[in-house]
Amino acid sequence: MKWINFRINGRESFGILKEDKIIDISAFFAESECPRTLVELMSQSEKLAHIEMQYKVMHGAIPLKDVQFLPAIIPPNNVMAVGKNYRKHVIEMGSIEDIPEALMIFTKSSNALLGHRGTIPLHANVTSELDYEGELAIVIGKEVTNISEAEAMDAVFGYTVLNDVTARDLQVKHKQFYLAKSLDGSCPIGPYVVTKDEVGDPSKLRVQTWVNGEERQDGTVDQLIFPIATIISELSKGHTLVPGDVIATGTPEGVGKGMKPPRFLNQGDIVTITIEGIGTLENQIM
Amino acid sequence: MKWINFRINGRESFGILKEDKIIDISAFFAESECPRTLVELMSQSEKLAHIEMQYKVMHGAIPLKDVQFLPAIIPPNNVMAVGKNYRKHVIEMGSIEDIPEALMIFTKSSNALLGHRGTIPLHANVTSELDYEGELAIVIGKEVTNISEAEAMDAVFGYTVLNDVTARDLQVKHKQFYLAKSLDGSCPIGPYVVTKDEVGDPSKLRVQTWVNGEERQDGTVDQLIFPIATIISELSKGHTLVPGDVIATGTPEGVGKGMKPPRFLNQGDIVTITIEGIGTLENQIM
Repeated sequence: MKWINFRINGRESFGILKEDKIIDISAFFAESECPRTLVELMSQSEKLAHIEMQYKVMHGAIPLKDVQFLPAIIPPNNVMAVGKNYRKHVIEMGSIEDIPEALMIFTKSSNALLGHRGTIPLHANVTSELDYEGELAIVIGKEVTNISEAEAMDAVFGYTVLNDVTARDLQVKHKQFYLAKSLDGSCPIGPYVVTKDEVGDPSKLRVQTWVNGEERQDGTVDQLIFPIATIISELSKGHTLVPGDVIATGTPEGVGKGMKPPRFLNQGDIVTITIEGIGTLENQIM
Repeated sequence: MKWINFRINGRESFGILKEDKIIDISAFFAESECPRTLVELMSQSEKLAHIEMQYKVMHGAIPLKDVQFLPAIIPPNNVMAVGKNYRKHVIEMGSIEDIPEALMIFTKSSNALLGHRGTIPLHANVTSELDYEGELAIVIGKEVTNISEAEAMDAVFGYTVLNDVTARDLQVKHKQFYLAKSLDGSCPIGPYVVTKDEVGDPSKLRVQTWVNGEERQDGTVDQLIFPIATIISELSKGHTLVPGDVIATGTPEGVGKGMKPPRFLNQGDIVTITIEGIGTLENQIM
């Protein structure tokens, strides 16, 4: 299933994309029973099973072309991200010496989320080095603590595409990454959350990024230094993961800062990130 | 005013502490008008003004001794913290070379919050170096972006006490601070949010920490490398602050890791942090 958060005629809702139409969540439940958000729904296994039974024979009523995309997770819980998780990206940003021996986890502000086609502010008064990072993001669907790698995938609800927009000058200036990663609008996420049953083995996924149609990044998830099950298991140690947690898994080589000379984002640039089977996330810098 | 989140007879609510009794929020409003959380109330200036008018002539009905303290902010938005913001603490953790030229901002998990008298897990399976950090925390009460230092204090709703519990071994291992700062229960906060009108000049405040009655930390807020107005103004650059944001301002010297030899927290230890005029936050390690 492809879950989508959307706005239409001033109303915000969520639902399932089927072909080119959306089945609104209200089609499945009486008003008093209807979950208000996908995050709320994730922990209601009976309602999920009900939807699973029904949706195959249902048809969408809302044309996808008529809606405005909202961030794929509303509201997120913690938006975590793994730094330096692709070998060639570590090298382009520094040297082979920087390959981490343990997970580097930072967060992005839960206020910074943006939907597919939302505009990313250039923030010219704050940074002159705005950069993209195309990433596969994990959406957690179960509350888990101290789970093993073998159990880790049970915690996954699905996957989405995330642009870990980064102000490189602030990243150097502030040392800890949070501020450089949390400017307003610097977390485009979507267009969909695709449930894990539809994805199969996520290590086969390919992450590609273009700026104004020019290919910049092309990596596969099997190149991760810390694979998905390791990330989830390590993060769950003494640190409870909950539905609505988002974990961006790291970015492949090819960011603007890694080019010689560096090429940062400019007004009007369009950043497009595609993960086959998950979706295409496109946003313009304004 | 001293705002408190509490539980009594299985019911959770919030209200104002007056002498040794709490005026429940429901005493001020008809049920349909009553804000559900302090964070929600913060942005409702008419309701705040109504409370301001009324509470002076009102009496509390709930004895403070009968309630369980909940975290002082529920739900928080981002829980941010400033690293290395007291000169002597920077030196005890490394050397004078480490004094930062710019703010170091990391976050703590919004799931890690704990109330006054809540128990902090030892997390012996994950860390052998659990440490305390007594801190003054700012509670943001207005949505602000790009505000100057001169305007910065307008964004403050009030202040509270925060223990920035840190797993020192994880802090070294993972480099970015988030995980080391976000173990379950590692963010005791409270007991109250004290409104800024009652505090006056926060730079006069004194932060003291004891472990099992032995004094460990004793600093004043005027020792901050980056003072409160600077923190708020810098953080607001391209990064909107919203009601419910919490900013821990940094810890004075005297953490366990800085002692020779280091003295980390053990099962049964009681950590007590007092900021005169704000309150005393006490938690046991279990």
